[in-house]
Amino acid sequence: MDCKKFTEEQIAHIKETVGDAKAINALSGGVDSSTVTVLGHQALGKQLKTVFVDNDLMREGEPQRIVKIFADMDIPVDLVDARQEFLSALAGLTDPEEKRQAVTDTFYSKVFVRLVKESGAKFLLHGTILTDIEETVAGIKRQHNILAQIGIDTEDAYGYSVIEPLKTLRKDDVREVAKTLGLPAELSQRIPFPGPALATRIVGEVTAEKLETVRTATAIVEEELCDSGAFQYMAVLLTDRATGIRNNKREFGQIIVVRCIESVDARTATVTPLSWDKLNRICQRITKIKGVNRCLYDLTPKPPATIEYV
Amino acid sequence: MDCKKFTEEQIAHIKETVGDAKAINALSGGVDSSTVTVLGHQALGKQLKTVFVDNDLMREGEPQRIVKIFADMDIPVDLVDARQEFLSALAGLTDPEEKRQAVTDTFYSKVFVRLVKESGAKFLLHGTILTDIEETVAGIKRQHNILAQIGIDTEDAYGYSVIEPLKTLRKDDVREVAKTLGLPAELSQRIPFPGPALATRIVGEVTAEKLETVRTATAIVEEELCDSGAFQYMAVLLTDRATGIRNNKREFGQIIVVRCIESVDARTATVTPLSWDKLNRICQRITKIKGVNRCLYDLTPKPPATIEYV
Repeated sequence: MDCKKFTEEQIAHIKETVGDAKAINALSGGVDSSTVTVLGHQALGKQLKTVFVDNDLMREGEPQRIVKIFADMDIPVDLVDARQEFLSALAGLTDPEEKRQAVTDTFYSKVFVRLVKESGAKFLLHGTILTDIEETVAGIKRQHNILAQIGIDTEDAYGYSVIEPLKTLRKDDVREVAKTLGLPAELSQRIPFPGPALATRIVGEVTAEKLETVRTATAIVEEELCDSGAFQYMAVLLTDRATGIRNNKREFGQIIVVRCIESVDARTATVTPLSWDKLNRICQRITKIKGVNRCLYDLTPKPPATIEYV
Repeated sequence: MDCKKFTEEQIAHIKETVGDAKAINALSGGVDSSTVTVLGHQALGKQLKTVFVDNDLMREGEPQRIVKIFADMDIPVDLVDARQEFLSALAGLTDPEEKRQAVTDTFYSKVFVRLVKESGAKFLLHGTILTDIEETVAGIKRQHNILAQIGIDTEDAYGYSVIEPLKTLRKDDVREVAKTLGLPAELSQRIPFPGPALATRIVGEVTAEKLETVRTATAIVEEELCDSGAFQYMAVLLTDRATGIRNNKREFGQIIVVRCIESVDARTATVTPLSWDKLNRICQRITKIKGVNRCLYDLTPKPPATIEYV
């Protein structure tokens, strides 16, 4: 694709649609929302307010790091602390769809609707990509950011119109556009990370304690695999426990699954055949996390598995 | 060790201890109980009654196959159907120790005590090995067959005395003794399989449906890895479920863990670095089992994990 032409068209389209009104967008630090943030700022400048909502589901140090990267590009980002609201909404939920729904609802119906009102914005810029739409419509997985496509009228429901500049692109195209827009490789080449973030990396109920465990495991996996060239890699915390031995005593410990996949566009994926040295090293580090005594490697392609567990 | 001397000593010891009384032993088909069965028959002939209790926790076709092998060695084995008793005892239990306890209690306090009474036996020949005793005493795992060592007086509790000819041996020594006794390689070299059998291969509650799933997975793993030279290999069914795609629709499927380890004596173990061809093939077959959409490979050595999950 012609990235330069694409960005010019989208910038023109955003300008024309928004006119003199105000717009808002939520940045998560993923390549999709980061690309939309830059496109939006090039189109609208100070008419666009960008917020980063800390939902306590982020990776280690992530909110602060992302805000800093955009500050360095002269794009101001408001960091909003909504951690307690998300944790409360997720308490007691174990069903994957209910968990995703709780994150969506808390974001749109509680936190974001408040931020939109405060900002006076009439337009929302959204990082939806083609795969999100396809999977939601097919009933495979309810993506957090799909609204219009499943019949939700955002203007009625939330008081704003949605603009989705990336909705015809797949992940590989978005990375090209991000590069064209001058986003640093840390963002343009960043591995995919789901909207409901670490809530999708915990099978079963999400609690502050489990988030801490999976956050630590995620940092280890990302550090070990960042130079693997893989499409995506992650750590998932299970609810099941298994017996183990620590200091010569029986321990009923937690289980972390490591998943590392090759894919072009997330529609299908194969498992990365990592070296045994690397697998052993990851296992050794993961099983040093407090309470964790097993580390498993996911062998399953997509299909029949999805990339994420939740 | 001198296997010939060991077997002669044990045969003499069993003869002397039992005298003119009757003895009984339970055969599971594992190398320990198979070795004890042959030792016992060489010492006692028709004074020894050998039973095989079908607890519904066995592998595909196992009860019939084991009885046949011993019939071919002129050792008669009574096949006892106790499947319903074990399933009822396990219903609703999720804690590993409670599950092991339920299998132990059903076996000793219900099924076996009845068989002992019917047989008139005063002595039980038991396949306990040194590692079983050490792990139980250390509190790592309650082995199903440890009684005296944790203070249970079997004569008081069950009406018989226990003879444990293998209690000074580890697994590698038992295999040598089995070979010396002329047991076929299928038994002498058989990979370890725990007493509570497939109940330890299901994390969480044991049901007839889950047993069917893990039995199928176990057959696949054993078929694929029987020529791997590994010490032990297994399939474990988790309670956790994960999202997947089947026929283009979302599916919330079951997860099978494959574990394959290298060990000499089961006290410590390392993970077998299987080839990716083999891992992919196992995954492909496992995810064709009805309801299963993930296959994971356990990367964890012992310690910090145990070999089994339950």
